[in-house]
Amino acid sequence: MRIARIAHAGGVHHAALEGDTARIVADPFGGAAAALSADRLVPLAEARLLAPVLPRTLVGMAHNTGLEDRRLPPQAFLKAPRSVIGPGEPVALPPGVGRVDAEAELAVVLAGSPEGHTLDTVLDCVFGCTVANDITARDLQRTDPLWTSAKGRRGFTPLGPWIETDLDALRPDDTEVALSLDGVPLPPASTRRLARGIAEILCHLGDYLPLGPGDVVLTGAPGAYGPLRPGGEVSASVAGIGTLTNPVTGSLPGAGRPAPAGDPV
Amino acid sequence: MRIARIAHAGGVHHAALEGDTARIVADPFGGAAAALSADRLVPLAEARLLAPVLPRTLVGMAHNTGLEDRRLPPQAFLKAPRSVIGPGEPVALPPGVGRVDAEAELAVVLAGSPEGHTLDTVLDCVFGCTVANDITARDLQRTDPLWTSAKGRRGFTPLGPWIETDLDALRPDDTEVALSLDGVPLPPASTRRLARGIAEILCHLGDYLPLGPGDVVLTGAPGAYGPLRPGGEVSASVAGIGTLTNPVTGSLPGAGRPAPAGDPV
Repeated sequence: MRIARIAHAGGVHHAALEGDTARIVADPFGGAAAALSADRLVPLAEARLLAPVLPRTLVGMAHNTGLEDRRLPPQAFLKAPRSVIGPGEPVALPPGVGRVDAEAELAVVLAGSPEGHTLDTVLDCVFGCTVANDITARDLQRTDPLWTSAKGRRGFTPLGPWIETDLDALRPDDTEVALSLDGVPLPPASTRRLARGIAEILCHLGDYLPLGPGDVVLTGAPGAYGPLRPGGEVSASVAGIGTLTNPVTGSLPGAGRPAPAGDPV
Repeated sequence: MRIARIAHAGGVHHAALEGDTARIVADPFGGAAAALSADRLVPLAEARLLAPVLPRTLVGMAHNTGLEDRRLPPQAFLKAPRSVIGPGEPVALPPGVGRVDAEAELAVVLAGSPEGHTLDTVLDCVFGCTVANDITARDLQRTDPLWTSAKGRRGFTPLGPWIETDLDALRPDDTEVALSLDGVPLPPASTRRLARGIAEILCHLGDYLPLGPGDVVLTGAPGAYGPLRPGGEVSASVAGIGTLTNPVTGSLPGAGRPAPAGDPV
């Protein structure tokens, strides 16, 4: 089932997407909309998709981009929760920060805490999966070793377009992740290539990080990534979920200079 | 005015503390309790103080502990928002993480985003101030350079006991911060000693970090800090606000070994 968050004439609600229709549902993460009738239908044409969840905790995995990263211990980073934006919302490139990269990732949306779970049971904590763009000011990672100003900036975490809750159909540990910059697709890669899969990531985080319903885990970029251009557009896709597209605005000093390719972090 | 969050027979609510009485108030940060009557009174003896706010963003300042830190550029770190606990809740020391330090700090609770503000106007974004204990697994800061596992652990951010909203009386840029371990007070210090004061911190964060109502900024520990002991107790105090006390549970390998003193980070 696809669960979205929509803005429509009646307000902002979570909704199950069924063809051209959004069926309003109670907030799956226990927010204020929980008492809402489940029978209300909104034509999708009259609704705008928002970020499907506003997480309290937004956590990503460092160096989880290829099998060779297994040589390093797992390591997590926090992004500012309010850096989340929805499909179609502009990513504004801040002046003076240098190169800003897009990274397409599978994002896990939690139904509950993975604390105390094993590899065999930890997927019980998963509500569903969505698409994330882990936007990163690459040059700032060097000057800010805590990454706060490189990854947590306003608009730096597009999420969406919806949450796919059918994990059996999605098979999140072997699904293709792709990035497209200004309409040009980059080479995709399967989540199978990640150093650590979803269950291993969640067990690692469950060992120490307090997590709960609606929290979001970015699992790492298995494929190619690349720099954003002012006036351009970025699309992140996960097979079995969908495509998350955002326009890019703002200006970058030196943006005309070609940026070298490299491995995402 | 002192604003607390209390658990009582009628549920969990924000309340203004007036002597021995808590007057229930609407959630000052726009949550579900906003429609509540403002006339309900609860005897404080029948209420338990909780963390006064559950922030979406919990951000601290690195190396802001003394004037010499001005030689370094300002740098922020994110703590996991669900690491927040209230007064009296136990801090459980995880096994195997080595030394765990308490750091007493003044915490700023935001009424809104500091984006676009100047040093002259940025205090308009402040809802009030509370006391924070920025608990830090010191050894893990060396093995996890992103600090996520060192600072973001379950129970690692006691907050409280309430929010003082009268900044004119509090004078948060020159008030004494003190830490007491197992009943033994450590040397206190004024927030005047911080490398950067509240207005400068908020302007720095407003430049890039998306912040909003109820978010919490830990301003740095101006005074001495020290290691937690299983079975002990830790109290952090800010003059003009109050004292935040938490019991310490759990066991630390090597906890009997005296830990060297040093500067907090």
